[in-house]
Amino acid sequence: MRSAGFDRDEVLEKITDAFWENGYEATSIGVLESATGLKRQSLYNAFGNKDAMFESALNAYQQRVNARLLQTLENPDPRAALHDFFARQATILLDAGQPSGCLVSGAQQELANRGETLGENMRSLLLGQHSTLVEVFERWQDAGKLTSDANPAALAAIVMGALRGQAVLARAACSRDLVASAAETLPEMFERYLV
Amino acid sequence: MRSAGFDRDEVLEKITDAFWENGYEATSIGVLESATGLKRQSLYNAFGNKDAMFESALNAYQQRVNARLLQTLENPDPRAALHDFFARQATILLDAGQPSGCLVSGAQQELANRGETLGENMRSLLLGQHSTLVEVFERWQDAGKLTSDANPAALAAIVMGALRGQAVLARAACSRDLVASAAETLPEMFERYLV
Repeated sequence: MRSAGFDRDEVLEKITDAFWENGYEATSIGVLESATGLKRQSLYNAFGNKDAMFESALNAYQQRVNARLLQTLENPDPRAALHDFFARQATILLDAGQPSGCLVSGAQQELANRGETLGENMRSLLLGQHSTLVEVFERWQDAGKLTSDANPAALAAIVMGALRGQAVLARAACSRDLVASAAETLPEMFERYLV
Repeated sequence: MRSAGFDRDEVLEKITDAFWENGYEATSIGVLESATGLKRQSLYNAFGNKDAMFESALNAYQQRVNARLLQTLENPDPRAALHDFFARQATILLDAGQPSGCLVSGAQQELANRGETLGENMRSLLLGQHSTLVEVFERWQDAGKLTSDANPAALAAIVMGALRGQAVLARAACSRDLVASAAETLPEMFERYLV
């Protein structure tokens, strides 16, 4: 979609990358102007204020990154699914063409304890991700592929934690080998619960 | 130690809690003035600029929180050690008398990809934490308590990730039950590597 002489999707991608690279607080309107090459009034007209731009960036990120990751869990074989899930996350995190780390993890850490709408939205996003993962583990458990003593809510929380941990390691530019070897070891840790 | 009419340790605790609660970026000098009841010039005289205050806060936090947590891993029995480690983290995270989440995780997420000294320091802190945990797993492996195929570097990275994940869940005020049940499940996941 084009508006006011620029490609809205292309600009939104630049806005998303700026928030991804710098986090919410450190991404000032000045940073967004430099990233997009547009004046603040054009940005405000097209996307609303900084918080509205951030919401649009989160939605764009979810479609671009999270959806690709969650697809792997549609595999009915939990062993293969978990392997592909963590391998794909490592691939995304180590992709040199993208900002490092994870926009959602970073924003949750920065914003999840705030009182206002932005904090509320981040908490909803977190709970939504957790529910999606709980459903995956419950589906496997119902199909008899997960031991009956496995706790889907706890395992879902642990997967979310593992994603965030890998994102911090990748963001801190620890060795690629470390992120990759953790991604290989993570699925093994679920063996205990696989039938 | 008292200086300029105030207790330095008490003020540092308030500075630490302010950074812990709000993160690095959102903790302005104005926020630090409100938190401590001191004027900015007194704060600058006693602690240096905002970045110096943040470094002092990180050190204070490490002594107050991280040291308590790492003590649990001195236990030569890995099963008991991992249980106590994750249980103690949950207790710290769910302590209503403290800010939620983890100062270090949050700051790493906000700052670990920066070029300047602050980013460099956060990366060193992250690598230091990883090395400490690698040594623990190597010690257990040398003592024949960990399987020989276990990868200490990957397991250490996974523990760091689990800590960060639990911190985000606690910070986002997800249910206490969720944080507590993940803390119970986490040590089970290492069973695969315990002799």
